[in-house]
Parts: sequence; C-alpha cells; structure tokens
Amino acid sequence: MRQNFEEELNDLHVHFSEMGMMVNEAIYKSVKAFINHDKDLAHAVIEGDNTINSREAELENKCFELIALQQPVTSDLRKIITVMKASADLERMGDHAVSIAKSTIRVKGNKRVPEIEADIADLAEKVKKSVEDVLEAYLKYDVEKAEEIALNDRIIDKAAYTITEAAINDMKRNSELVIGATDYLLVAAYLERIGDYVTNICEWIIYHETGKVVELNTKNKDI
Amino acid sequence: MRQNFEEELNDLHVHFSEMGMMVNEAIYKSVKAFINHDKDLAHAVIEGDNTINSREAELENKCFELIALQQPVTSDLRKIITVMKASADLERMGDHAVSIAKSTIRVKGNKRVPEIEADIADLAEKVKKSVEDVLEAYLKYDVEKAEEIALNDRIIDKAAYTITEAAINDMKRNSELVIGATDYLLVAAYLERIGDYVTNICEWIIYHETGKVVELNTKNKDI
Repeated sequence: MRQNFEEELNDLHVHFSEMGMMVNEAIYKSVKAFINHDKDLAHAVIEGDNTINSREAELENKCFELIALQQPVTSDLRKIITVMKASADLERMGDHAVSIAKSTIRVKGNKRVPEIEADIADLAEKVKKSVEDVLEAYLKYDVEKAEEIALNDRIIDKAAYTITEAAINDMKRNSELVIGATDYLLVAAYLERIGDYVTNICEWIIYHETGKVVELNTKNKDI
Repeated sequence: MRQNFEEELNDLHVHFSEMGMMVNEAIYKSVKAFINHDKDLAHAVIEGDNTINSREAELENKCFELIALQQPVTSDLRKIITVMKASADLERMGDHAVSIAKSTIRVKGNKRVPEIEADIADLAEKVKKSVEDVLEAYLKYDVEKAEEIALNDRIIDKAAYTITEAAINDMKRNSELVIGATDYLLVAAYLERIGDYVTNICEWIIYHETGKVVELNTKNKDI
C-alpha cells in the first residue's frame, strides 16, 4: 500500500511537470502567433487550452482522492497541496496564453509598431525563461532558486511597464495606432501576470520545503 | 474532539464569509475612488489589501492544519478544500480591486468621458451584486443559485466588452483621451476578471455538494 502511494505521489509530480511544459509551450506559441500575425497558430493555442484545463481537473481530482483515501501527513500532504495550488496557477497562465492568442485573432490589418513588437518578443523570452526555471526548481524543490526567480520578476514587471508606456505614447501620437497599441498594452499585461503566477509557484516550492505560506514580492502586482 | 472539529469547520466558514465581505468592500471602494477621482480612498484600498492577504494566508494555514491533524473524509474534507480554493479566488479579486485603485492614482488631470464612467459604475454595480450573491450562495451551499450566478457572468462580460469598444473609439477620435481611455479599458477588464473569479467560486460551491470539479462558462474568459 505504502509503495503504491509513493508511486501515486510520483505520478502526480510527473503529471504536474508535463502540464507545466504544456503551459510553457502555449505561452511561447501565443506570443509567436501574435508577433507573426499567425492566426492559425493562435487558434491552435485556444483549442489546446482545453487539454490544459482537463489536465488541471485531473490533477485536482487526483489530489482530492489521495488526501481522502491516504490521509497523508506532513511532507506527503504538503506535496499534494503544492501540486493542487501550483496547478491552479499553471492553469491561469494558460488562460493568459489564450488571451494573447485572442488578441492575435482580433487584429485586422491594424498599423503595427515593429519596435514595440520587438520589445514584446523580448519580454516573452524573459517570461519563458522564468517559466522554465520555475518548473526546474519545482522538480528539485529548490528553495534558493525559487527565491531568486521570484526576485527576477521585477525585471519582467519593468519590461512590461516600458511597453505600456511606449504603447500609450504611440496612441497619443497617431490615432491609427490605437487598436494595435491597445493589444500591445494588453499582451504586456498578460505576460506580466504570467510572471506573477510564476512567483506564486515559487511560493509553493517554499511551502513544500518549510510548511510556511510566504508572500514573495509584496509589491505592485499590477502595472 | 469531534465537537471541536465541528466548531473549527464552522469558524472556517465564518472567516471565509468575512473575507468575502472585505473583498466586496474593496471592490466597491476601488470603483468609487476611480469614478470620484478620490486618491485617498484609492490609497485606503491598496493598504487594506494586506489585511485581505493575511486573512487568506490564515485561512489557508488553518485548512492545511485541519487536513493534517483531523484527517477529514468526504463532506468535511470537501468543506475544507472548498474554503482553500475559494479563498484563493477571493484574494485575487482583492488584487484586482488594488489594480483599479492604482489606476485611480495614476490619473493626473486627464480628459475624462462621463458616459464611459457611468457605464463603468453600472458594470461595477453588476459585479458587486454578483459578489454578494455568490457569498450568499456559498453560505447556503446553494447549487442552483451558483449555476444561475455563473450564467449571469455573460452579462458582465458583455458590459465590459461594450466599455472596451467605446474606449477604443474615443482614443481613435481624440488623442487627448488616450491615457484616460486606457484606464477605462483596464478597469473594465479587471471587473470582468472579478466576474470570472465569482464563477470559480460557483464551481467550488458545486464541488462541495457533488464532489465533482466542473467548469462553468467554458467561453471567452477574456475579452
């Protein structure tokens, strides 16, 4: 019985990591679609979100089941709770990828600003790195790394803020840019939010190791 | 011992409801501050968010403790999990109130559009009603009501979309309106998101009664 439980816990861990990779791919594809005006890819991201949502529901149900049937204590319980909470964060990151994909579809031959799009691509790279880092830190339950990743979120916030400012200035300068620039502003906000969810996962890594619910980066969570 | 556990479960329920009322008040105040250009009130919302965050951390820790020490099964366990998940939703609703408050502080004598502000006030009323309804449905674990509230979220989505469109049109028409209208657009998006979290709580009410994790409104979660 105990052996089985260990295996189930391990499965949970593996399925969580798989879900993380799916979400990371969705974010990457959504930004790629946005930058390349690739509506087909955007549609693929939107459709793929169902799989992510189902995966979360499966993980959640599995967690509930393990808690109810196995009545785990201390570190095993923390492992399950960590998956339960962090998979909800992953699911929301996926929702934001969908939002970015929807921005791509909405765009209908608007005037675009290559400089801002380059900045968005750059911000997306930072976010992608951050998502990959947190998934790795999660696999190793690496608290030190988790704290470092959360601290780096400020760089993401700053880059998102710069894009927002540039988009607002462009809108003021040229009314033909309004619709396109609105999307820049929203996409920057979505990426910034994804960064916040990465910080949440960092907090769950720390909870797993210490049993304490901490709040990292109690700062401007929104631009 | 059992008696104590019942009391602790009841306390959990009461503290969750209190947190819900705090969040509802924060949302209400943030929109009031935005509409009346009341920066003092906006600052009060931002400061008050710490109390909401602490309340969530307390609830979360209490839930973990009860699961670990009492090893509850079936409906008791579901009660605890419901509080754990729904309080995370409440906390995020509070974050969005802070975002609205921050928009208020950012505004520096921009040109404003009374018609859109009236629509935002109207949307905020709808959201407030929805938050109050879900807290009541939660208290009674009223599944039918929860389903009805989730369905009404479409009205909130539609109102938010109308504001977004109006704001974009104004920006195109008059570049002096760009900064103000950007805030209208963001505030509408925050309110719409708060509506989504209300839908999440509806899902937890249903989970509590049925043990099933359902997804209500699998539609455009974002504008």
